[in-house]
Amino acid sequence: MFSPLIDELMQALRVLPGVGPKSAQRMAFHLLEQERQGALQLARSLEKAIDGVSYCNGCRTFTEESFCGICRNVKRDGRTVCVVESPADILAFEQSGSYSGHYFVLHGHLSPIDGIGPEDLGIDILESRLAQGEIQELILATGSTVEGEATAHYIAELGRRNEVTVSRLAQGVPLGGELEYLDGGTLAHALNSRRVI
Amino acid sequence: MFSPLIDELMQALRVLPGVGPKSAQRMAFHLLEQERQGALQLARSLEKAIDGVSYCNGCRTFTEESFCGICRNVKRDGRTVCVVESPADILAFEQSGSYSGHYFVLHGHLSPIDGIGPEDLGIDILESRLAQGEIQELILATGSTVEGEATAHYIAELGRRNEVTVSRLAQGVPLGGELEYLDGGTLAHALNSRRVI
Repeated sequence: MFSPLIDELMQALRVLPGVGPKSAQRMAFHLLEQERQGALQLARSLEKAIDGVSYCNGCRTFTEESFCGICRNVKRDGRTVCVVESPADILAFEQSGSYSGHYFVLHGHLSPIDGIGPEDLGIDILESRLAQGEIQELILATGSTVEGEATAHYIAELGRRNEVTVSRLAQGVPLGGELEYLDGGTLAHALNSRRVI
Repeated sequence: MFSPLIDELMQALRVLPGVGPKSAQRMAFHLLEQERQGALQLARSLEKAIDGVSYCNGCRTFTEESFCGICRNVKRDGRTVCVVESPADILAFEQSGSYSGHYFVLHGHLSPIDGIGPEDLGIDILESRLAQGEIQELILATGSTVEGEATAHYIAELGRRNEVTVSRLAQGVPLGGELEYLDGGTLAHALNSRRVI
């Protein structure tokens, strides 16, 4: 219906998560009508990021250098490693201001049905680092989903085999959470893990 | 927090309509993790579209040629011109399959508060075409908003001055619309414009 270049742009915009045909159309017209400079800037940023950004050699987060800022920071404690599913999780931890160790990013979780095994998540790299004996505690911060739990369980086994302390994030009532809106599973966890005060 | 190239990409993604900081972060990670080819394709499509697409010399819709497919189509009736606010409105008309005339795209509506006057909407171009005497009917299909109505009113005046038939899309109950969910304004319109059957 539209001219070829516009059709191509709408198709290309659909690689963005959550963008269907209608949103892609709206985005394309918005860029052409009001944000031509911004669109060119976006094109340049995309090319630079895809070209320059790869995994940190330490923790596998995204970075354009060999090691990311956290891995290079000598003030951080490399003996504790927090295993997360995505770089966005690192941001959440850093914003909480309560963690000063290193991270290890899986970029996903174990999912045999999609053919995602330990090597795809860099777990072999983590294993070799565990074998070197520098790591003393592994904090498993994968998601509280079936796949996240399975991944945590798999890595916990590795940790135990290498005689490393393995911990998992506590589950329970979130701060400010109202009990009546809490799901049964979380409430059961909170009750089972209750603490004497 | 993230490395400079990623921060820059997140910032650049925010030119897209409806994309805030969280969506931009999700999009950036999604592209870097799973859609590197798609992201490069998007960058190329953006550059090509921004470089190649401009306004049709006939109807002001987006096209990379001098005249768009509709203006070039000799089977279409150039004596009837439907005035719309955006190229997306053309798509809606074409999909309805009930119109075979030409269009004229305003790319917005009159909005003195934002400094958008008749020249910004190409109404001067429309006026000179009206003066040439080829157009016999103007169908005003601007939005049913205050600004859309004001724009329609302004163009209707021009049409009358040039002795052209001016019509406005009918307002009333949409197909399949349930009366109990219809707003009062629309219902009042539908009642006032009732037809004897």
